[in-house]
Amino acid sequence: MNISIQSAEPAEIRALCRTGAFAGQTAGLANGYVQTNLMIVPAEYAFDFLLFCQRNPQPCPLVEVLEPGCFAPACAKGADLRTDVPGYCVYRNGVLTEQPEDIRAYWRDDLVGFMLGCSFSFENALMREGIALRHVDQKTNVAMYKTNLACHSAGCMRGNMVVSMRPIKAADVSRAVQITARYPRVHGAPVHIGFPQGLGIADLSKPDFGDPVPLMDDELPVFWACGVTPQYIAELSKLPFCITHSPGKMLVTDLKNEEFV
Amino acid sequence: MNISIQSAEPAEIRALCRTGAFAGQTAGLANGYVQTNLMIVPAEYAFDFLLFCQRNPQPCPLVEVLEPGCFAPACAKGADLRTDVPGYCVYRNGVLTEQPEDIRAYWRDDLVGFMLGCSFSFENALMREGIALRHVDQKTNVAMYKTNLACHSAGCMRGNMVVSMRPIKAADVSRAVQITARYPRVHGAPVHIGFPQGLGIADLSKPDFGDPVPLMDDELPVFWACGVTPQYIAELSKLPFCITHSPGKMLVTDLKNEEFV
Repeated sequence: MNISIQSAEPAEIRALCRTGAFAGQTAGLANGYVQTNLMIVPAEYAFDFLLFCQRNPQPCPLVEVLEPGCFAPACAKGADLRTDVPGYCVYRNGVLTEQPEDIRAYWRDDLVGFMLGCSFSFENALMREGIALRHVDQKTNVAMYKTNLACHSAGCMRGNMVVSMRPIKAADVSRAVQITARYPRVHGAPVHIGFPQGLGIADLSKPDFGDPVPLMDDELPVFWACGVTPQYIAELSKLPFCITHSPGKMLVTDLKNEEFV
Repeated sequence: MNISIQSAEPAEIRALCRTGAFAGQTAGLANGYVQTNLMIVPAEYAFDFLLFCQRNPQPCPLVEVLEPGCFAPACAKGADLRTDVPGYCVYRNGVLTEQPEDIRAYWRDDLVGFMLGCSFSFENALMREGIALRHVDQKTNVAMYKTNLACHSAGCMRGNMVVSMRPIKAADVSRAVQITARYPRVHGAPVHIGFPQGLGIADLSKPDFGDPVPLMDDELPVFWACGVTPQYIAELSKLPFCITHSPGKMLVTDLKNEEFV
């Protein structure tokens, strides 16, 4: 299985998710293809959430938004949003209550699916340009932190931005900014560089999400807006009901990263 | 009045609109500042319209979207959407019924205001780079055409794109593309160049909106996505109620064109 999934095309990965044969992390799979964060909210909150994304494009870069009740995204041919993600999180009143591998039993005609860009796209670009990423080398999840950067609120949605941090060699920081700036639809350029206290982060060794990663003497901590932000905001805003992908288990689309430049 | 309005700052122009002292076209006013198209729809259609804009960013580039009932945009300090535009169009079931200079009597708590980028921003940039625009020199409205380019539909909103056409010297076309491509938030690069039939336009001398403009032998017709599209779509979609700015009478904001690069 491991060998076949590593070389699988997007549609094959989605089919393996659908049958339950694959329920793992999608990092490193379907190289070159866009993977997306998923947020599903009831129609009565869809305007607020869409407006929140429109006002906060760095943490919430929209790839596709579906009509109420629709689970067939255009960016992934033949896909079913309810089955083709390796794992889901169901939240009720801001509390994680269930983690199913299939959400057909939860589906309602008033649910609206939002697919948001994910950092895997720009990480691919950084690595292709010779900028190593320690969490990838260590096979851990990227370190993520709550910050003091307020997002622009929208309706009932309000809260601060979550950022991901990658240690980058000082000599490479300028290039890392330029490379990721080319991908505004997948978080774009960093939001902050080199001074965690400026974001209200007291201790880099204690991330709020993901795994800590050591910082070397010749490296700066570089912070990008993170796709966990909308999930964190939905929790804070105590949405009565929402469904997200499970962390690290993304929807693999048919879009190429290069189309996102 | 003409002299003072020509040199007026954005807040002064808005104040003159508010008192009724100015109700004219805003082309050429407040040079260097962003002017916006306006669309106001009831909250029950706001998700569909926001989704339509998200799916069609070239004709519908969002500058700001307000909360339901709010008429104080952040991009224009102290402004009131109900009074600070020189003129408005009220549509009922897709039919233009009234053209008031003030919409306070029409305001409702469920109305949602959308402000969309306008071509004045990129026209400024073109002229600054030495590319003359005939409709500006002739002091006429730009020529606009319905096309066969289908917009991505969203909910009840569906229809084809409207484009504006500017004759550009063949030697300048490449530069005009590059200059306007820098402004994706105000329609961006052209959608079509040189072949009106390819857009389903039979006769350039008969625009669907605005005024015809002659084309010289050494010029190509260059077509940009046009901010009239959302109004045209709202008409086609027979929205029960919506309010737009009156053609050519834009909201003058405090945003600088240069912030939009």
